[in-house]
Amino acid sequence: MSDRLRPSSDSTVVSEAVTLLERVRATPPLTHCITNAVVTGFTANVLLATGAAPAMVDIVGESGMFAGIASGMLVNLGTPTPEQRAASREAAEGASTAGTPWVLDPVAIGALPVRTALAQELVALRPTAVRGNASEILALAGLSGGGRGVDATDSTDDAAEAAAALADRYGSVVAVSGPVDLLTDGERVIRIANGDPQLTLVTGGGCALGAVMAAFLGAARATGISALGAVAAATLVYTIAAERAAAASGGPGSFAVALLDALAGLQPEHLVAAARIEESSR
Amino acid sequence: MSDRLRPSSDSTVVSEAVTLLERVRATPPLTHCITNAVVTGFTANVLLATGAAPAMVDIVGESGMFAGIASGMLVNLGTPTPEQRAASREAAEGASTAGTPWVLDPVAIGALPVRTALAQELVALRPTAVRGNASEILALAGLSGGGRGVDATDSTDDAAEAAAALADRYGSVVAVSGPVDLLTDGERVIRIANGDPQLTLVTGGGCALGAVMAAFLGAARATGISALGAVAAATLVYTIAAERAAAASGGPGSFAVALLDALAGLQPEHLVAAARIEESSR
Amino acid sequence: MSDRLRPSSDSTVVSEAVTLLERVRATPPLTHCITNAVVTGFTANVLLATGAAPAMVDIVGESGMFAGIASGMLVNLGTPTPEQRAASREAAEGASTAGTPWVLDPVAIGALPVRTALAQELVALRPTAVRGNASEILALAGLSGGGRGVDATDSTDDAAEAAAALADRYGSVVAVSGPVDLLTDGERVIRIANGDPQLTLVTGGGCALGAVMAAFLGAARATGISALGAVAAATLVYTIAAERAAAASGGPGSFAVALLDALAGLQPEHLVAAARIEESSR
Repeated sequence: MSDRLRPSSDSTVVSEAVTLLERVRATPPLTHCITNAVVTGFTANVLLATGAAPAMVDIVGESGMFAGIASGMLVNLGTPTPEQRAASREAAEGASTAGTPWVLDPVAIGALPVRTALAQELVALRPTAVRGNASEILALAGLSGGGRGVDATDSTDDAAEAAAALADRYGSVVAVSGPVDLLTDGERVIRIANGDPQLTLVTGGGCALGAVMAAFLGAARATGISALGAVAAATLVYTIAAERAAAASGGPGSFAVALLDALAGLQPEHLVAAARIEESSR
Repeated sequence: MSDRLRPSSDSTVVSEAVTLLERVRATPPLTHCITNAVVTGFTANVLLATGAAPAMVDIVGESGMFAGIASGMLVNLGTPTPEQRAASREAAEGASTAGTPWVLDPVAIGALPVRTALAQELVALRPTAVRGNASEILALAGLSGGGRGVDATDSTDDAAEAAAALADRYGSVVAVSGPVDLLTDGERVIRIANGDPQLTLVTGGGCALGAVMAAFLGAARATGISALGAVAAATLVYTIAAERAAAASGGPGSFAVALLDALAGLQPEHLVAAARIEESSR
Repeated sequence: MSDRLRPSSDSTVVSEAVTLLERVRATPPLTHCITNAVVTGFTANVLLATGAAPAMVDIVGESGMFAGIASGMLVNLGTPTPEQRAASREAAEGASTAGTPWVLDPVAIGALPVRTALAQELVALRPTAVRGNASEILALAGLSGGGRGVDATDSTDDAAEAAAALADRYGSVVAVSGPVDLLTDGERVIRIANGDPQLTLVTGGGCALGAVMAAFLGAARATGISALGAVAAATLVYTIAAERAAAASGGPGSFAVALLDALAGLQPEHLVAAARIEESSR
């Protein structure tokens, strides 16, 4: 990681992460997830371990009204069946109408046409946050043909301009995942260098972070903490838990188990001690 | 827990649980599950660990005939896509025709209209058992608007009358989950105070119990053990395994793993030693 | 196991397994899985632990073109919704056109009519490999009414002739799973006696092997290693990892976790030391 990304416990980002983690645990945000068939169980378990209350309501006739009840929402396009595509549109409109913050995760767009078209349609509804790897963010901004399925073939910094362009165009916070995560609202740029490579060996390792972002956006409502602050807080909590899990595991199976334990046991002082953050203006 | 819910190893409920656990392991009941997309894998693993043979057949054109082949069946309404709704109707009719015992789990009904209508339709087909949290049971009985998604906002005792009313109306055993589980056939009431709070931190912690109930109802066929006895046996086995798992785990991730190990290793003497049961008449 | 199935480290099968495991890790084959809703997450985690790059693209309009991009593909019929049935046809045609090797796993065919008809349709597209238990292979060859759901009611040797007949008819390698796995291309027959009974207590324990076969078929392209060699290599890697996992676990929950760790940690010398193989001509 960059030398500049040294431990930085005096950051506002860290103090906001501590505040939001405590809020999530005190008043579990009802977190509505429309997500892909591969990661539903793991995503729900990550939310429960973090302290949030997951609910997966992905059918037409329910997803829109539930978006209005929920504290935060995730729409992940990993396995978008026709029913889920219609339910995603209904949910995004429901969230927009109700003012529910929501996260769009445009999994594997670029090469695959059905989800690419849906992602373009949904991003125009101005999600509170967009989360993806560099290839997905480039594709969403119209700057690349996309990666090879779910794997990024571009680096996080390659996607910095695309992230800023999306943030400007849709008013969304954009989070680009990678060895160093890059988050921006178009004005501020936050880089976070926490995490562990084993996250890429657990299916849903990235998708579940999108759900945690939705939970933290829900917890941030009426706190004065910005959407960028909430997304950064979720990233810190999740990636620092991953570091703690990696230290306690012997492979990707035990790492996934340890990640849930680490999320449930994460304490404010862990965030303060481990955060590796760099902030800058665009 | 209530003082009255002391260890009660001389109970008929416990001896029936011992009998049925041994039957499940000796002759694995083919347990047909139509369940939600979040918990399919965990549910199947819980059944396998307990000794049963899971099968998930949730498409139109197969679910009804398979309900006739199966020993027991679960219909869980957690993520009811149109295909699953049609397959659930077909399966419930198939089970009724064949005399296959079946369990209805009306997940998150009340606030969500599509599943609420489906649950009303299915319960009219007289499931052998209905399993839900207090809010879901109240909603199914028409006494409440339901909880907040999957979380109960009412207590088990609040739902005691609703449970009895449902039992009377449909001839079903009704199981209300909570810190103390309440089970009734409309005549007898059994309260079970086993379990562990960590079950609420694992997605499918409740849903999987519905599947175990279906397996035990299957194993109870032609034994003379009542449906109430089978549902109570399943509850005891599952919640006592959860207690043993909690003692061996360090968080919700390792708890879920330990629960499967504990189910596979559960012995009759564990049931006898740990059961906390109270029986009464209505 | 048969006396003849002694450790056999000098086998070509073992050396090819070593070669392909190294190739999978060096250049992760993009492995396209259309699989059942119960095992998606576990399957993806098994592929990641082995070293492959999973992607689940099971919707119409994407599955066919993605079959052309992928290195290898699996079509598993465990929960074949209408959308997945159409996507499977599209994918099988896409793989055939592009020359992408693919595996058909006809889960629970025989008793269940929708998937049985689909399996007959897909096998006629000449999959590179077919994987199933003895009952499924007999049913696919038209020689039996099939098993009881996902459980085989016939032995591996009972299915040897059916496997050879399928191999002759469709040019496929046929893999019959059981305590001793039987693999054939119609000419050679390989029996592998590795594995552990706990694989049958983890849902997806067999299904995930089909995905590993698809990954190894992908890795074998342009190596001169035959499809039979690739399928045998996948079987060896997976079942020897299972043996190592069994030695490190205390029940089916911890076994599943340990299997992922063992796959990630598997070394060539483990294959050489543990392989129990018998080869013969038909």
